[in-house]
Amino acid sequence: MELLKQKICAEGRIYAGDVLKVDSFLNHRMDVDFLCLLGKEFYERFADCGVNKILTIEASGIGIACLTAQFFHCPVLFAKKAKTSNLSDELWVSEAHSYTHNTDHKVCVSKSYLGPDDRVLIIDDFLANGSALNALIELCRQAGAEVIGAGIVIEKAYQEGGDMIRAQGVRVESLARVRSMDPEMGVVFAD
Amino acid sequence: MELLKQKICAEGRIYAGDVLKVDSFLNHRMDVDFLCLLGKEFYERFADCGVNKILTIEASGIGIACLTAQFFHCPVLFAKKAKTSNLSDELWVSEAHSYTHNTDHKVCVSKSYLGPDDRVLIIDDFLANGSALNALIELCRQAGAEVIGAGIVIEKAYQEGGDMIRAQGVRVESLARVRSMDPEMGVVFAD
Repeated sequence: MELLKQKICAEGRIYAGDVLKVDSFLNHRMDVDFLCLLGKEFYERFADCGVNKILTIEASGIGIACLTAQFFHCPVLFAKKAKTSNLSDELWVSEAHSYTHNTDHKVCVSKSYLGPDDRVLIIDDFLANGSALNALIELCRQAGAEVIGAGIVIEKAYQEGGDMIRAQGVRVESLARVRSMDPEMGVVFAD
Repeated sequence: MELLKQKICAEGRIYAGDVLKVDSFLNHRMDVDFLCLLGKEFYERFADCGVNKILTIEASGIGIACLTAQFFHCPVLFAKKAKTSNLSDELWVSEAHSYTHNTDHKVCVSKSYLGPDDRVLIIDDFLANGSALNALIELCRQAGAEVIGAGIVIEKAYQEGGDMIRAQGVRVESLARVRSMDPEMGVVFAD
């Protein structure tokens, strides 16, 4: 999506340690009018797929998920991160690893809100190693829900997450795919 | 707001320990079409106030904040909760106490995104003891931003938060004010 690539080039900042900071519009300050355009783009890509639920993960996926859901007129369910192992049996629970914080955490949703009638579009801000997305797919499998696909704002295409998820047969639509980035050279996009 | 009161009566569940669970539409599964109506209501109440930024706190405030912001055509800034005391000096930082989890935590936003030009509407899902809202107001004071008011989905009017914040001269608009609640008797609304 050309508009997003331009925004990333204009506002994104690259730091050592493979960090692309887009907190001016995506995951701290949120440029809501702009994010609505991204939501509309996700809608256009998945409009005919019978999506009836959007699944995301707290915290930074929630905004873009809600702004996307209004085009589908469907609810959003956001998975919660829990550090405790003491979880109720009313939850679907999977496991994710955060490379940013080097921590493992449980990812969970209430069984009441995810089940076999759901045709789920997963929405998230970033896809890198795929750990979070994998955990969300696993929740859907446990619930017997169908994963229609995943809509990602920025994919780090040089990391293994996207390939791994696509190899499972899941359709992944990323609005911008970063092929490489570097504090000196800036961002280079795939395709 | 009558529609919200009906929704709370229809879907809310009350548990011992002063818990009103509305996770079927507000803070786990999010009924986005319905939340848009709440966002529109906030807009109508604050339309003429020159709001140019919406401030909320992760995670459950983000959805309603984004859906409200699109009526104002302004960005959302969400404050993050941090447990570490090792925070950068690029942040405005305040303090909140969670009665639900009985923990203290820091609440912070980047100094880049909150400053003296901002006319801030604070949006949150719940107001009870007022600790989170107070922390957000404090961030605005540090930044020299003007607090136009606070838009709250559900206020527990029998707790002290609303009175305390209003006594500071901050306009608080709550879409539903709960006067009392009880697992047997259900919810009674103020006004």
